[in-house]
Amino acid sequence: MFFASDNTSPVHPRVMEALTRANEGYAMPYGNDPIMEEVRATIRDRFEAPEAAVYLLATGTSANCTALACLCPPWATIFCHTNAHVEEDECGAPEFYTGGSKLTLVGGEHARIDPAKLAHAISHTGRGGVHNVQRGAVSITSPTENGAVYSVAQIEEIARIAKAHDLPLHMDGARFANALVATNASPAEMTWKAGVDAVTLGGTKNGLMGVEAVILFNPKHAWEFELRRKRAGHLFSKHRYLSAQMQAYLQDDLWLEMARTANARAADLSAGILSLSGASLLHPTEANSVFASFTRAAHRRAHAAGAKYYLWPFDQSLDGDDEEMLSARMVCSSCTTEANVDEFLSALRG
Amino acid sequence: MFFASDNTSPVHPRVMEALTRANEGYAMPYGNDPIMEEVRATIRDRFEAPEAAVYLLATGTSANCTALACLCPPWATIFCHTNAHVEEDECGAPEFYTGGSKLTLVGGEHARIDPAKLAHAISHTGRGGVHNVQRGAVSITSPTENGAVYSVAQIEEIARIAKAHDLPLHMDGARFANALVATNASPAEMTWKAGVDAVTLGGTKNGLMGVEAVILFNPKHAWEFELRRKRAGHLFSKHRYLSAQMQAYLQDDLWLEMARTANARAADLSAGILSLSGASLLHPTEANSVFASFTRAAHRRAHAAGAKYYLWPFDQSLDGDDEEMLSARMVCSSCTTEANVDEFLSALRG
Amino acid sequence: MFFASDNTSPVHPRVMEALTRANEGYAMPYGNDPIMEEVRATIRDRFEAPEAAVYLLATGTSANCTALACLCPPWATIFCHTNAHVEEDECGAPEFYTGGSKLTLVGGEHARIDPAKLAHAISHTGRGGVHNVQRGAVSITSPTENGAVYSVAQIEEIARIAKAHDLPLHMDGARFANALVATNASPAEMTWKAGVDAVTLGGTKNGLMGVEAVILFNPKHAWEFELRRKRAGHLFSKHRYLSAQMQAYLQDDLWLEMARTANARAADLSAGILSLSGASLLHPTEANSVFASFTRAAHRRAHAAGAKYYLWPFDQSLDGDDEEMLSARMVCSSCTTEANVDEFLSALRG
Amino acid sequence: MFFASDNTSPVHPRVMEALTRANEGYAMPYGNDPIMEEVRATIRDRFEAPEAAVYLLATGTSANCTALACLCPPWATIFCHTNAHVEEDECGAPEFYTGGSKLTLVGGEHARIDPAKLAHAISHTGRGGVHNVQRGAVSITSPTENGAVYSVAQIEEIARIAKAHDLPLHMDGARFANALVATNASPAEMTWKAGVDAVTLGGTKNGLMGVEAVILFNPKHAWEFELRRKRAGHLFSKHRYLSAQMQAYLQDDLWLEMARTANARAADLSAGILSLSGASLLHPTEANSVFASFTRAAHRRAHAAGAKYYLWPFDQSLDGDDEEMLSARMVCSSCTTEANVDEFLSALRG
Repeated sequence: MFFASDNTSPVHPRVMEALTRANEGYAMPYGNDPIMEEVRATIRDRFEAPEAAVYLLATGTSANCTALACLCPPWATIFCHTNAHVEEDECGAPEFYTGGSKLTLVGGEHARIDPAKLAHAISHTGRGGVHNVQRGAVSITSPTENGAVYSVAQIEEIARIAKAHDLPLHMDGARFANALVATNASPAEMTWKAGVDAVTLGGTKNGLMGVEAVILFNPKHAWEFELRRKRAGHLFSKHRYLSAQMQAYLQDDLWLEMARTANARAADLSAGILSLSGASLLHPTEANSVFASFTRAAHRRAHAAGAKYYLWPFDQSLDGDDEEMLSARMVCSSCTTEANVDEFLSALRG
Repeated sequence: MFFASDNTSPVHPRVMEALTRANEGYAMPYGNDPIMEEVRATIRDRFEAPEAAVYLLATGTSANCTALACLCPPWATIFCHTNAHVEEDECGAPEFYTGGSKLTLVGGEHARIDPAKLAHAISHTGRGGVHNVQRGAVSITSPTENGAVYSVAQIEEIARIAKAHDLPLHMDGARFANALVATNASPAEMTWKAGVDAVTLGGTKNGLMGVEAVILFNPKHAWEFELRRKRAGHLFSKHRYLSAQMQAYLQDDLWLEMARTANARAADLSAGILSLSGASLLHPTEANSVFASFTRAAHRRAHAAGAKYYLWPFDQSLDGDDEEMLSARMVCSSCTTEANVDEFLSALRG
Repeated sequence: MFFASDNTSPVHPRVMEALTRANEGYAMPYGNDPIMEEVRATIRDRFEAPEAAVYLLATGTSANCTALACLCPPWATIFCHTNAHVEEDECGAPEFYTGGSKLTLVGGEHARIDPAKLAHAISHTGRGGVHNVQRGAVSITSPTENGAVYSVAQIEEIARIAKAHDLPLHMDGARFANALVATNASPAEMTWKAGVDAVTLGGTKNGLMGVEAVILFNPKHAWEFELRRKRAGHLFSKHRYLSAQMQAYLQDDLWLEMARTANARAADLSAGILSLSGASLLHPTEANSVFASFTRAAHRRAHAAGAKYYLWPFDQSLDGDDEEMLSARMVCSSCTTEANVDEFLSALRG
Repeated sequence: MFFASDNTSPVHPRVMEALTRANEGYAMPYGNDPIMEEVRATIRDRFEAPEAAVYLLATGTSANCTALACLCPPWATIFCHTNAHVEEDECGAPEFYTGGSKLTLVGGEHARIDPAKLAHAISHTGRGGVHNVQRGAVSITSPTENGAVYSVAQIEEIARIAKAHDLPLHMDGARFANALVATNASPAEMTWKAGVDAVTLGGTKNGLMGVEAVILFNPKHAWEFELRRKRAGHLFSKHRYLSAQMQAYLQDDLWLEMARTANARAADLSAGILSLSGASLLHPTEANSVFASFTRAAHRRAHAAGAKYYLWPFDQSLDGDDEEMLSARMVCSSCTTEANVDEFLSALRG
């Protein structure tokens, strides 16, 4: 019953096997390994983007921020949702990587940027010329921090607003596969065909040990990206082990298979919660995260049964009135079993 | 015959097994995994430093530069050797991490800092008060970029000069184990007992997949280090896989065993080269790197036989006069076999 | 009828005379001029702060940001009002000077920080430990960007909240003298006695050519401030001309006299506007800025009569419906005459 | 007898008059004053550069570093002389403004970059691809920190080497006028016609209160320069006072007249020193600085007579052996009189 985060799950066995296979003999370092050639070809193929620049990094923060630093100069601002990971969970990494750009926070339900609010925020930025921080880039996250998924049409709408102001569009796809299987779109439809310029294609939260790909659909920033990655200490010498993970991930649609499982378990969990008297969902469950409201009594039972998940926001407590409603986040992964879900629901139910 | 770098070698089987073992079930992320508890205890024990702050990162550049950023403010300078990795091979990462500090280059044979030159450089820095970059930190590398190893006495001498100016001393130990077995010192003797304040204990070049420990003997910068690591995107969510590698590395002295093998092969290779007519060593072979001079004809033969290594500096060529002397760097690892060395020497010999 | 900004006004004749006097003979550079000794003594005396560190810079942006960089580390955030100059009018200078800290925007009427909102923002920052940007500093502006003035009690309340979280309190006093004469407080009461740790004491908008003092009541950051100022290119070689301006400013209460005149003209202007049919004040006039709402027809008449001021926000226009209400900002300075005010009111009135 | 630096001299009376004239009435701020229009036209005319972007800043450090930040990305290096002001006297401002670029130090007599050493340094930079700091820009200073002046042919030679590697060439012209009258070249010949892309045209050391112009001959970085200047706090609100100084400076060749006087006094001083028994010049006197060697006894006499100048380097002392030779720097300005020179020589002579 481990719903704390998908990053608490182990690595998929096929990925471990790939690592073992990659461990034969010598390999040239720093991305010059032959497996990286395959990764590049595979990603270009899956994304129908033969010119795209493709890079691997080991963490989502570094992947997002290296990309953003290529897209947004230091004196500009990145428009993102108030709850975006780049704003809330990266300890100022965007500011560090960009050399001091700002993040302009835009609201919207379920952590999806509201297009009208985005348009307003952009048009109200930089009106004072040189005195103001300039318009830099737009960054969206799908699935969002609240488990919602942007439809292709929604991405297109955001992109239209960004393009109207010549702003590049970045997508934080830490859980990209979960969004992809939720929308039934193709990778290309969900990215460059909808107007996305750069995407972080996450693997770590979906069964890898620690690999994220960054895809720059327009390769004009490719060399700059390589220099920024190196300078940030994110160019791995034994790069083959990143390559091997990503290649296994994409092979035979393993990434989609894992994401489908995780999403299905989240759907099961949501349905179960809705059937509980007094419980409700705080956000629609569109990918693998479930945000629910239930009583402290239910929380106490789940906790006693050993369930791991976060009260969200953090300042809620096990102690207090039984009937008070608490908010919780449960994240499923490809390792979550139907039995885990059932056991958790039973505990909640009491 | 792969002598290009120790980072081209595979991961040691015992490390792969540790990764597989670590892959069981769920684990808390971001360094809160139970294996990290063991790593911390093991390192504190091996280094006789019960108060030390211990962190894991995946690359040497990030390990060095996060530590240096804690030690040196943006308006100060880091005294290092002209050929130091932080100067020559990190694409300005120290400047990026520190927020713009300078590196003051100090000479010395075999890439060891010459103490007299260091004393001179420090005393000639910052004499103009606020107009000048200030004195920040001293950074040494052992083994050096030329394969030399600082004796404990040499480290103590550098530390004395640094301390006389209240400067912290950082050691880039990308190949720490190779230096350790070369000196026969204990980890404590080679670090804090000699005056080192922070050390990067490398694992990647010595049989790991990608892990370096940073040890801060004085933990006053511990929280700052954690924030800087996070902000640079180097706090791993699935941290258990870093922990597992480092724990296996230190277990049963695997790190020392691998380093001894690598150093022994380098010694064999050096002895063989010295026996070749016209060939010579450019630097004493004190750890696992060999710097040698031999004819282009010898180089052509080795190259034809499939040997991989770098001409060092890079601007030398396969083409040209047969008898011209070229400079080459050969790095041995724990995977280098006696047969590899013999085959290489045969090819050189012709 | 120049109400565009107080920075469009000329320099007071007594300041010009001081510059002429300072222009005799040679003087040591970089703040080692004898007039700076006087400035330091005068400011310490006026602020009853014998230990304070006192520095001069030529622009408000550099003064604010050098101080903030001493108070807030790169991984932390500065709590300020949504409309603060540091947020809206410095093109990201705080981010540049601090090395990438964030600004957390807090609401409040008339651009005064609402204490409850500040308390909420602080308590909701950094709850996720190392994952989050940390709490850094609080910055207030008095008079605010909307012409309101913090009372001493209001400053004390903000300071209490900041101190409860161990946060330093910075005051942007670009129009400090205007606030001082409005509150009738002493400089000490309005600053360190109320809990302010560092203040920018502006001169440029109040009759100087270009000088701002920064006063650090706790001198522990003094040397760091000097290094940051130099490194930002704000240590003037011919510093005596900054010193001479500031000394003339403080001499015989010239600063207060100029501020009183400017505030009085703003009061006259406000009273006049309130007497116009259909016009109103958008913010109370507490210092030397007037924010008013009047019809486009009135604006057209004022514009035709040659009055200079800004429609605020900028996206309003001379063209459109006569009866539509526009928002405007008029700033008075010590050069504003009663005749200027009357002429402007006549033009508005039509 | 004030030879400490030309920045200890007062402002020329014609400049003070211009400031007084500029002090009439209101003026639009931030460079939108009408005098700036004249300055721009005058500089474009004098430099025969009708397209050049022209900006004013108040300090040499900010002028140099804002320009360099436009020319050199954070991951690159600026090739400059070991004794360049940007290296030795700006407390890391280039690193701060550029976001962490490096300075690669190149030797050469009299602080002039040796072309062969520059070519070597450039060709040895960045050979390791992404691992290395990249080639960024070349920066020269004329007159140099040792008082030497680059001939037009010497600038052309440096430019040829820079252009061969596509590197922009920056000139720190803190004493530009002194170099200009020394070479008898036109401003265009000494800058863009010789291959200079951006120049700092200093005024502060040559009779102004604090103004430097930056001229970007290729205006492609113009907007970026404006943003960087603002963000660094160097866009002056009461900009007219910078404009007025620069306009008076260029009017009726005042800048050249002052520089000629300063250079002539330095020539007199050098001739006098050469006539002293045992004294010698350490560098040729080509502009307004004199570097000389004389005995401690002579130094003591000059000091006792009230002469102000720096022993250079700083670690020499009034105390010690009478006959020991000391090194000193004496800087003349347009205020230095023949009597000052004679008096100083008499004192030295004893």
